[in-house]
Amino acid sequence: MEPVAYPAESVEGWYALHQMYTIDRAALREVDAHERDALVRDAIDTLESLETPDGGGWTRVVPLTGSRADVMLVHFRATFDALGEAQRAVHRMVLTDYLDPAYTFLSIAEAGMYHLTAKVVRETRESGGKVGDAAFRERLAALMKKEAETEHVRKRLYPEVPADMPYVCFYPMDKKRDTGQNWYALPVEERSRLMMEHGMSGRRYAGRVSQVVTGSIGFDAWEWGVTLFARDPLEFKKIVTEMRFDEASAKYGEFGEFFVGRVMAPGEWLDEL
Amino acid sequence: MEPVAYPAESVEGWYALHQMYTIDRAALREVDAHERDALVRDAIDTLESLETPDGGGWTRVVPLTGSRADVMLVHFRATFDALGEAQRAVHRMVLTDYLDPAYTFLSIAEAGMYHLTAKVVRETRESGGKVGDAAFRERLAALMKKEAETEHVRKRLYPEVPADMPYVCFYPMDKKRDTGQNWYALPVEERSRLMMEHGMSGRRYAGRVSQVVTGSIGFDAWEWGVTLFARDPLEFKKIVTEMRFDEASAKYGEFGEFFVGRVMAPGEWLDEL
Amino acid sequence: MEPVAYPAESVEGWYALHQMYTIDRAALREVDAHERDALVRDAIDTLESLETPDGGGWTRVVPLTGSRADVMLVHFRATFDALGEAQRAVHRMVLTDYLDPAYTFLSIAEAGMYHLTAKVVRETRESGGKVGDAAFRERLAALMKKEAETEHVRKRLYPEVPADMPYVCFYPMDKKRDTGQNWYALPVEERSRLMMEHGMSGRRYAGRVSQVVTGSIGFDAWEWGVTLFARDPLEFKKIVTEMRFDEASAKYGEFGEFFVGRVMAPGEWLDEL
Amino acid sequence: MEPVAYPAESVEGWYALHQMYTIDRAALREVDAHERDALVRDAIDTLESLETPDGGGWTRVVPLTGSRADVMLVHFRATFDALGEAQRAVHRMVLTDYLDPAYTFLSIAEAGMYHLTAKVVRETRESGGKVGDAAFRERLAALMKKEAETEHVRKRLYPEVPADMPYVCFYPMDKKRDTGQNWYALPVEERSRLMMEHGMSGRRYAGRVSQVVTGSIGFDAWEWGVTLFARDPLEFKKIVTEMRFDEASAKYGEFGEFFVGRVMAPGEWLDEL
Amino acid sequence: MEPVAYPAESVEGWYALHQMYTIDRAALREVDAHERDALVRDAIDTLESLETPDGGGWTRVVPLTGSRADVMLVHFRATFDALGEAQRAVHRMVLTDYLDPAYTFLSIAEAGMYHLTAKVVRETRESGGKVGDAAFRERLAALMKKEAETEHVRKRLYPEVPADMPYVCFYPMDKKRDTGQNWYALPVEERSRLMMEHGMSGRRYAGRVSQVVTGSIGFDAWEWGVTLFARDPLEFKKIVTEMRFDEASAKYGEFGEFFVGRVMAPGEWLDEL
Repeated sequence: MEPVAYPAESVEGWYALHQMYTIDRAALREVDAHERDALVRDAIDTLESLETPDGGGWTRVVPLTGSRADVMLVHFRATFDALGEAQRAVHRMVLTDYLDPAYTFLSIAEAGMYHLTAKVVRETRESGGKVGDAAFRERLAALMKKEAETEHVRKRLYPEVPADMPYVCFYPMDKKRDTGQNWYALPVEERSRLMMEHGMSGRRYAGRVSQVVTGSIGFDAWEWGVTLFARDPLEFKKIVTEMRFDEASAKYGEFGEFFVGRVMAPGEWLDEL
Repeated sequence: MEPVAYPAESVEGWYALHQMYTIDRAALREVDAHERDALVRDAIDTLESLETPDGGGWTRVVPLTGSRADVMLVHFRATFDALGEAQRAVHRMVLTDYLDPAYTFLSIAEAGMYHLTAKVVRETRESGGKVGDAAFRERLAALMKKEAETEHVRKRLYPEVPADMPYVCFYPMDKKRDTGQNWYALPVEERSRLMMEHGMSGRRYAGRVSQVVTGSIGFDAWEWGVTLFARDPLEFKKIVTEMRFDEASAKYGEFGEFFVGRVMAPGEWLDEL
Repeated sequence: MEPVAYPAESVEGWYALHQMYTIDRAALREVDAHERDALVRDAIDTLESLETPDGGGWTRVVPLTGSRADVMLVHFRATFDALGEAQRAVHRMVLTDYLDPAYTFLSIAEAGMYHLTAKVVRETRESGGKVGDAAFRERLAALMKKEAETEHVRKRLYPEVPADMPYVCFYPMDKKRDTGQNWYALPVEERSRLMMEHGMSGRRYAGRVSQVVTGSIGFDAWEWGVTLFARDPLEFKKIVTEMRFDEASAKYGEFGEFFVGRVMAPGEWLDEL
Repeated sequence: MEPVAYPAESVEGWYALHQMYTIDRAALREVDAHERDALVRDAIDTLESLETPDGGGWTRVVPLTGSRADVMLVHFRATFDALGEAQRAVHRMVLTDYLDPAYTFLSIAEAGMYHLTAKVVRETRESGGKVGDAAFRERLAALMKKEAETEHVRKRLYPEVPADMPYVCFYPMDKKRDTGQNWYALPVEERSRLMMEHGMSGRRYAGRVSQVVTGSIGFDAWEWGVTLFARDPLEFKKIVTEMRFDEASAKYGEFGEFFVGRVMAPGEWLDEL
Repeated sequence: MEPVAYPAESVEGWYALHQMYTIDRAALREVDAHERDALVRDAIDTLESLETPDGGGWTRVVPLTGSRADVMLVHFRATFDALGEAQRAVHRMVLTDYLDPAYTFLSIAEAGMYHLTAKVVRETRESGGKVGDAAFRERLAALMKKEAETEHVRKRLYPEVPADMPYVCFYPMDKKRDTGQNWYALPVEERSRLMMEHGMSGRRYAGRVSQVVTGSIGFDAWEWGVTLFARDPLEFKKIVTEMRFDEASAKYGEFGEFFVGRVMAPGEWLDEL
């Protein structure tokens, strides 16, 4: 028996951890000058050493504007264990005694293969094959493997920090499963069509906004995270508005909190504190 | 392929930050008189210097009545970075050690161009053009640019504090995306009609209530913020009630918390503490 | 163009503030006897002075049973500024250092003019006039003004504490705006009919329960507050149950937390602490 | 005009208060041995004296397993004022300085008279009478009064702690008022039928589970509380699962948190701390 | 009268408790070296002694990545009282003074007998018997008892920690009771069909993911808990995504927070702190 809605397969790259903290400024002000110097040096050392880890990935410090959190640390790493190591390094900083966790998000860079999946479903049906059987899965896996090695997919799986886009916006999202607006009950061909339209909205912002999609089903209460980089923070408003009118978002998207800030070097950030 | 619901374009002006704080009165009472004087002088200096910043915008202090927060600071600034600078200035005040963040809202003054967008959509269709293509976008951009320079739109993008309206009411809002009540699935002509009706309700309060709409899609979990100024706080009840019966709100509006208070000079506010 | 659902006009009286606090008993027990005496005397002086303020209104202390808060202070005042003054007086008490804010509700005593509004709408239509135009508004305003001066409406706008009803119950409420159950999309004649039925349920409790309705649209996240006084607290269960079956509540009502207690003199309450 | 859904009348017995606390173990460990002894003796004295109060009712201590709270105190009392007195006695214990309130639930033991109400409605209609008028109310009141004095109803209004059922489960619940699943819009005959089915599910557990229903409309945000006692805690899973499939729960029930534990003597509980 | 939706019977095994804690690192850092050593030895002793308790079951320590909690303790025990004893042992550790409870989940290992129940319902109807009567219950109980003793069901009721699958993922879930998507109003045959499909999705991960389902109706606000073990944490994303497209989840599933980490020996975990 064929599933009502065959899941779109995806390929994955780096693991991601977003850590939001508020700063306990009153306690920090109490620390004497000597101890504070040590604490700052230790934090700069740690955060700089995390920036370009062995094994791939990166860490960035994003002080936030107008959020319930004061700062967001973004970590991308090649493995789940490396991500855990980055987390432990942050916890070991004495500075962390003055940081209260406000939010955290665990996910992995992903590229949804809606189009390929829909294509193999269609071809399988046309050739009288059986969607979901071994042959189907093998053929889809082979195509996905090839696709995953293309330059444009690799960029999504192993995203770099765009040097000229210092502004950052992060938000988690879900697809609805309500009566009459249930993403998970749509056929894959329909989801493929909606995601293509959605992708075209994003492409109009190429060169102005860089978008990293990370999947969090099985890792977090939310299903996806979106990390946007931009040259001009107004672009966050423009692109998110435009996408909210895409059918994929208008009918099926649910959005969480937004965290907006500007990447800073660890030393620069700690100077400001 | 034409989007189901073409987004109404908007033009933007100053960035806005609303910061709500509760006051830790017990801790403040513990501070000795000398230190308290220094703390108060520092806070007055900071808040007064923020009132009319270089580059445009303003900051006001609004002690609140009957809210879970005690005070709201409202900042308007010409750029996102200037807004961040205002935020950092507030955080640098020693007074902030006695203020617990209760809520925060990041947005940007906007004027929705529903009417213009609907008009260009209609004209494009009548002339056999293609909604959303380059020609369409150029024509709309040109009209919006012209509109953005009119006096009445500039007043919305660069809102001043009305001198004779000391009472302030702030609330965030969303448009619903429920099955059967989905703003984002309405055609722009329909949204234009609803916003025109909604605007007329507001206009009946001209001279009594001054309304600043700030957009927060891409910046905050809520989609818009509304900051009302009035001569008489009862007008807040009257205008919000009347608008809640407009179809745009009755069917599509969702509202967050309300924060109501009265603008005070920094020195006056700190005297009361 | 006539609005889909013309809002029922209302008249307003005193402003109201409900403040719920939890008591930090551990910290209070730490205070030495001398200081505690001073603190208690100061609190009694403040609370007694608030009881019957110049300019009208009153304040009462209501220790709560079985709530996440320990005490509710209820203030009614003639103006928004007088309410703010009452709030500041409470904040100035040293006792407040041992009270943690748990909830707060800002509203204004109101009498909904559903019946009059429906009547003028009907008459305007019958006479071929235009609902919502200047003539309509003038006629309705004149009738409402007259109605507002009747004894039974004045009692709702300037509610007194019933001397023989020491038990108090407070809860906030909303009217739904869901698909298929949308109060704000009902014609005023229908809302008038539902509110009349709802009022009759209330009237069956005359002499046993005294009900004060305060409106909070534009002031609070909730739209109304209901403050009930009764001789016997079981009446709270009986009247709220009966009203919940009225169509106005069954289909359209949404209810928040309930706070139930018994009015106490400030000295009596502080003795118990 | 007859109400759409005539409320089922109920009769009431003892008032009930459920108090859930977390224990501040770190602070307790700091207390020196002498002070701790005094604190424990005082707590045992208070809790034992509350167990069988004059005037009727009881208090029990229920340490919890796997809940966000550590302990639940359950009080039943003959009057609202006696319940308040029990609450004040708990607050006066020094132990309370080491207990953080986690949840609280105020209600009153009730027996719903769905069947009798439906019967009188049916008879009134058959005899051409008017549902809800004085004659109807008188007849229903007389029948209810008689019913309230039967042994099986008295057991529900003045529930005893079953000596051989040490396990306790408490949860609050509501009946939905959603479009298409609205308990309060059902005719009383239908509610009577559903409650009879629901009661039969409960009866299959007679001798294994003892169920106390307390009503909280007008007292709490939730409408009912259910306190179950059992010999074997697995019965909680069995009975709640079975009842969740009754139409009354499947379509109309909404459930809050569950608190599960085992009754302990105050001395035994304090020993473990 | 036959229930609309006869509940699927289930059999139960070990009780389960999931305890999530955040670590107060700042306070821990304050502890002097001597005291810290004692605290660590005590914690290792306790946690190791809990690992393989008399009477059956186990305890494991799972430090978490990217969650609002820092660590999850998972306890399986043969009885509710043994589970309470494990909980008290954790509370007695001095380490617990530096652990803040973040979440807790009480449940019991279960195997749903959807298929057997549906089978007996079908057979009973075919033979003209009465679903739910004594004969029906006896026949179903006998079949379930036999089934519960099979190897594959015993593995679900008394789950072991798979030695080669160090990664752990836990999340709670519900089945919806919304209008149009109500699991509890489906006939048992339909639920049996959906659970079989759902089970087949799980089986495709055999050898890569080990799944423990624990039931929490009557014990917790959520209805089920799912504890997954895997060799590779990416499998959590794959299996949860695939299952979310099963009709049972797509239409009826609701999911809570996700907690993901890696099993560690107590000593190893404490070393890292």
